[in-house]
Amino acid sequence: MKRIAILGSTGSIGQSALAVVDAHRDRLRVVGLAAGENAELLAEQMARYRLAIAAMATGEAIDRLMGTGVGAVTIGGTGRDGLVAVASHPDADVVLCASSGTEALEAVLAAIELGKTIALANKEVLVMAGGIVTEAAARRGVAILPVDSEHNAIHQCVHGRPAGDLRRLILTASGGPFRGRSAGELEAVSAEAALQHPTWRMGRKITIDSATLMNKGLEVIEAHWLFGVGADQIAVVIHPQSVVHSMVEFTDGSILAQLGVTDMRLPIQYACSYPERWEAALPSLDLTRAGKLEFHSPDTGRFPCLALAYRALREGGTLPVVLNAANEVAVEVFLEGRLAFPAIPRLIEMTMNAHASQRVSTLAVVRAVDEWAHHQARELARELELTF
Amino acid sequence: MKRIAILGSTGSIGQSALAVVDAHRDRLRVVGLAAGENAELLAEQMARYRLAIAAMATGEAIDRLMGTGVGAVTIGGTGRDGLVAVASHPDADVVLCASSGTEALEAVLAAIELGKTIALANKEVLVMAGGIVTEAAARRGVAILPVDSEHNAIHQCVHGRPAGDLRRLILTASGGPFRGRSAGELEAVSAEAALQHPTWRMGRKITIDSATLMNKGLEVIEAHWLFGVGADQIAVVIHPQSVVHSMVEFTDGSILAQLGVTDMRLPIQYACSYPERWEAALPSLDLTRAGKLEFHSPDTGRFPCLALAYRALREGGTLPVVLNAANEVAVEVFLEGRLAFPAIPRLIEMTMNAHASQRVSTLAVVRAVDEWAHHQARELARELELTF
Repeated sequence: MKRIAILGSTGSIGQSALAVVDAHRDRLRVVGLAAGENAELLAEQMARYRLAIAAMATGEAIDRLMGTGVGAVTIGGTGRDGLVAVASHPDADVVLCASSGTEALEAVLAAIELGKTIALANKEVLVMAGGIVTEAAARRGVAILPVDSEHNAIHQCVHGRPAGDLRRLILTASGGPFRGRSAGELEAVSAEAALQHPTWRMGRKITIDSATLMNKGLEVIEAHWLFGVGADQIAVVIHPQSVVHSMVEFTDGSILAQLGVTDMRLPIQYACSYPERWEAALPSLDLTRAGKLEFHSPDTGRFPCLALAYRALREGGTLPVVLNAANEVAVEVFLEGRLAFPAIPRLIEMTMNAHASQRVSTLAVVRAVDEWAHHQARELARELELTF
Repeated sequence: MKRIAILGSTGSIGQSALAVVDAHRDRLRVVGLAAGENAELLAEQMARYRLAIAAMATGEAIDRLMGTGVGAVTIGGTGRDGLVAVASHPDADVVLCASSGTEALEAVLAAIELGKTIALANKEVLVMAGGIVTEAAARRGVAILPVDSEHNAIHQCVHGRPAGDLRRLILTASGGPFRGRSAGELEAVSAEAALQHPTWRMGRKITIDSATLMNKGLEVIEAHWLFGVGADQIAVVIHPQSVVHSMVEFTDGSILAQLGVTDMRLPIQYACSYPERWEAALPSLDLTRAGKLEFHSPDTGRFPCLALAYRALREGGTLPVVLNAANEVAVEVFLEGRLAFPAIPRLIEMTMNAHASQRVSTLAVVRAVDEWAHHQARELARELELTF
């Protein structure tokens, strides 16, 4: 029996994770849940599982949770402290980090220090503090199992082979809804159009990140930390069908690819069951009905976010923190209709250019740079907005 | 340094294997070679490697070999005895069985009994005596590493995971040159047309087997023995591009696929280097230039050989021996222009129907049934020929 704590239980990944738990009640037990603001859904979840601990983002959310008549439960706190409390609870063997944004950084590190297995569905943890997190995990002998479908695919392909056997990781990207658009057409795309992802149903922020290819850029940085390979060993191919979730090329030229239906329960279950595999109630992928599979090179001219992410990885230090923070601001401003779609990479690049990169020595450095970059990007956004 | 003996060194696989040895002279050393009738090429090979032992199919071939002025070498003998002598030589750690047909059966078993690793590029060994061979390998703790690109792909995907983790093996098939032909068109195809394989360059027998899909049928039987799964767990999909060499579906629904250039040096090197991977001088597969990848269900109505192979596997015993022997005769008679293409499966089925299957208890049983089936198929071929 594995005992699991979920950070971000009311989000899309969190709900899929609970579906995996429900399908394997003999193997998985939920002991802790942390949610953001959705008190009603967390109350429902608490009625289904006997928790040892729960947490929410704010005191106001906890008040609403208590108002639902939910029974007695230890409340770990709010904000980052609440996430740390749930992730650190002694009953948890595995911590699934499925909260969005940067809030869970301290919680993941706390869980690692306590020797808990990390199932990681959050990009920011590694993009912002990959060196600190992977160093701690290596020192404590803790596994970081990626839940993101691409890294999960690579984890399945690598399957314990030494890093020296890897020639290249090949991340697949659907290409997003604007794959075939010209640069001129991209000037005019609306937030509504950008929110229509062709193959995956996801949150708003990650859907825009898919449309700009920044999602893939952040994944390139994550892949570097998860699999110990350099920027030159990580390639991206556009694969509109999203049937191949990613690939690994070995030193002998052989490529292994992982394929499957586009359902997050698959990578979540893999991370929960690893190193075992469990039966899943999902339909099998029928390749004879999947249509033709295509692979193209990404166009970093029209989608510069990918190139910016490579630059951040290559230059290193705190530059990926700035990339991520500036992107958060750019997406927010775009969704408010205050900036054109192609201004997203422009704003990120301007923010990166304004930054003097430093070594990521502590989480405090990460937090400070993150704050600076948000502020800087907001200032720059106001300037760009005036010309929009 | 691994020391390797090659059965079938002058054939296509044998020559590719020597190219792999040449690319890794610091890791591989050739100690024994067995060839069929091509004395001139064997003499050239013997000039390049310092062998401990050599063998050829016939005394007449050995006379020609000696006539080429080749230096002193221990000749292991002719026919099956020669193959056994080369495979059993104490200097060999790995025996690559790349001879075609059934001759190498005793040699492979002898090598297994001596604890040598088997790199297997021959289908008949497992189709005819899979039970005996895999039982002996398990008893001696000997690895059988498949060189056939499909089984090699599956071996890479499985990578030591337990058989209980496997839901299905998915063998890919190019579909051969007649993939889109109607039943009527198939009546009229010539031996010359059948010898034009779309993606792989191979010998005559295996090229016809690709056109009838019997090649895939024999691979289904091999896969059963290599990976310990039943007929219902082995699927075949037509994949005309031959980019995906085969796949494994795990119990959780996840699929791993192996992809690569169509060059036999890749699986040969994998088998020689396993469990390591070595750098290869081959070009990488560029998926963005590979075109669209298609997957279709095979049409066993137009290509009944595949269904016959499944039947032989399900009914078991000596029926696969009969399938293989009748196919050898049918291909031979077809290549002589004495039978129409669709008569190949007809002849095989008639021979199978005439057989009373028995348990494969010893190699003597296999040899006797093989002989009976050849004789029976030749008799039946003459009857079919009269109606052609």
